[in-house]
Amino acid sequence: MSLVALISDFGRSDPYVGEVELQLRRLGPPDLVLVHLSHDVPAGRIEAGAWLLRRTWPQLPEGAVCLAVVDPGVGTDRPAVAARCGGRWFVGPGNGLAAHLAGSPDLQVVRLAHRDPPAGLPAASTFDGRDRFAPAAAHLAGGGDPARLGPAGAGTDLGPRSDPEPGTVVWIDRYGNLVTNLARGSTPGQALAGGAELLVAGRRARGPVRAFAEAMGDELVWYWGSADTVEVARNLAPAADLPGVAVGLVIGRADT
Amino acid sequence: MSLVALISDFGRSDPYVGEVELQLRRLGPPDLVLVHLSHDVPAGRIEAGAWLLRRTWPQLPEGAVCLAVVDPGVGTDRPAVAARCGGRWFVGPGNGLAAHLAGSPDLQVVRLAHRDPPAGLPAASTFDGRDRFAPAAAHLAGGGDPARLGPAGAGTDLGPRSDPEPGTVVWIDRYGNLVTNLARGSTPGQALAGGAELLVAGRRARGPVRAFAEAMGDELVWYWGSADTVEVARNLAPAADLPGVAVGLVIGRADT
Amino acid sequence: MSLVALISDFGRSDPYVGEVELQLRRLGPPDLVLVHLSHDVPAGRIEAGAWLLRRTWPQLPEGAVCLAVVDPGVGTDRPAVAARCGGRWFVGPGNGLAAHLAGSPDLQVVRLAHRDPPAGLPAASTFDGRDRFAPAAAHLAGGGDPARLGPAGAGTDLGPRSDPEPGTVVWIDRYGNLVTNLARGSTPGQALAGGAELLVAGRRARGPVRAFAEAMGDELVWYWGSADTVEVARNLAPAADLPGVAVGLVIGRADT
Repeated sequence: MSLVALISDFGRSDPYVGEVELQLRRLGPPDLVLVHLSHDVPAGRIEAGAWLLRRTWPQLPEGAVCLAVVDPGVGTDRPAVAARCGGRWFVGPGNGLAAHLAGSPDLQVVRLAHRDPPAGLPAASTFDGRDRFAPAAAHLAGGGDPARLGPAGAGTDLGPRSDPEPGTVVWIDRYGNLVTNLARGSTPGQALAGGAELLVAGRRARGPVRAFAEAMGDELVWYWGSADTVEVARNLAPAADLPGVAVGLVIGRADT
Repeated sequence: MSLVALISDFGRSDPYVGEVELQLRRLGPPDLVLVHLSHDVPAGRIEAGAWLLRRTWPQLPEGAVCLAVVDPGVGTDRPAVAARCGGRWFVGPGNGLAAHLAGSPDLQVVRLAHRDPPAGLPAASTFDGRDRFAPAAAHLAGGGDPARLGPAGAGTDLGPRSDPEPGTVVWIDRYGNLVTNLARGSTPGQALAGGAELLVAGRRARGPVRAFAEAMGDELVWYWGSADTVEVARNLAPAADLPGVAVGLVIGRADT
Repeated sequence: MSLVALISDFGRSDPYVGEVELQLRRLGPPDLVLVHLSHDVPAGRIEAGAWLLRRTWPQLPEGAVCLAVVDPGVGTDRPAVAARCGGRWFVGPGNGLAAHLAGSPDLQVVRLAHRDPPAGLPAASTFDGRDRFAPAAAHLAGGGDPARLGPAGAGTDLGPRSDPEPGTVVWIDRYGNLVTNLARGSTPGQALAGGAELLVAGRRARGPVRAFAEAMGDELVWYWGSADTVEVARNLAPAADLPGVAVGLVIGRADT
């Protein structure tokens, strides 16, 4: 099985995701399987896309290609890249979206030199997702030689890295739960193992709990979420509705 | 062909549906086909998910697996189940979502005993969809032995049944049409066969009509909808915008 | 590979798209690949669906079937058709959605005579997408004989054509970019090749540029978009938020 996973800020209302799929079907292997991770990265928000890529990357099977496009600089001279590490490929803009891969010891980078738009259309300066990244992803998913995509590049071609500090809210999900980047295995995460109160925009959150249903009334609770980082929730109400809560908020221990 | 149909309240903006798909691809058969029925069940609304499951269940091919997750009690001790009847499998929480299957004479229930999270992650207490239900659905879609999933259970493991009374609005669709649970084949449905006026939040609806376009001006009409139950519409305007209209509204004959 | 591409105004929250997919899987060939182009055509807006169909049609591979349903007249006597030209099939209502195909020299039209609803349900008068168009699309995707679908029809069965004048905003995308129908290869398009200022609801737009990032501050710019027509954007802000901007707005040269 060849698998391409997709992340973008295209939304699903416009035909853009479908046109990317048509390219992948036209140029990819016959057994290609597509998995849509999210197309609702907030428009142009590279750091939100970077978090999503980082979260889902370890869940991709070996050999998978992740086609990730959050690309406000499309049409400028920011690099277009394919990068392999850990047996998986990233294909997308070198604008920081995949910068966390740059330090990997087995990193291989290719600078994409070609465009292959759909029949009858010129390559669009504003749709590299369809005309440049999708053809490269299809080529790699089919086991094609990376060297045919362009010259070798370096980790710096992935763009600048900008990790928010540990404890930052990096995503708010459909339930209004606050997803942070504070990992259980990190030093600040290990310090929370025995239980701790966190401070969330001036309110206390108790945890770790195991279930939303453990929250009493309007109480805030925190738990180790599905990417094994701190998440904050209320039971049956969105924590995101609380005053002062937004992506970028930093959450810390109540006692420090 | 192995088919898994999916219902949830995950939405599509978050990576949750995609992560469930990655599990199904990792653990399921190579010829697996996925069909997304809806991921926009209102968050935590078990009865809305139950209606959707009930509506689509007969449309699933024999041998299909329906992975349905509306699970506000995730992480508590509510059962996690697989249930077979009529040659199809339900996999999901035993919280009432599939309670309408409980009376089936050929019902087979298994209590899910295992978790199988993605590589490198611990099982999350808040994401049984990915770590518990998806692996079971993949196993069953591939023709695996149900007994390997856990001990045999009973119909009561499906959870409490709570059917709204006949004539209740159970879903409002994108066009603002009101979908009720009043079936054509039921006793109150048969009484409407010759035509009747219905009372909808104080307004009269004429029917049955065959097309939205039969509505005159702002008139309300009703028809036998695509699940063969009463639906109410206006022509080219959302019936859902009328005052007093919401899921839960009960619609009855104007003359009773 | 057999490919069915889908366009509709069904949205994705309701089970309608999934039920169409179940029909395609039940009745189509085993190697069927589905591509969702958009299900967010504004409800009942035939001209918006027509634009989407026209934009994506050339990108479909030969042999593909495009199942397109924007069908406010469902249940009335508007024709239901399959039409082939350029090696691709359109299946949907004959209400103008595919009227631009009517002039093709190799046009073949069939009037759909049959319905094939899911097992246990009567054909719904309001869901031809599932009960009528999906079975026809599955039949054609599998290489079935078109003559078995119904009697031969004519180009007039595709319905009335109503093309907005060149320069009309036909779609507004997720980024708030304004997509027009002014093609680069047309006479008015060729007149813009050397650069021109356009007038957009009383404001000037400079172009053609190659990247959103070329816009200075709040400046409006235009460029040749991904369907090779004029598009208008601001950098990192939605052009759609400007006063007077909406689908239907006509954009022209500032100097005429």
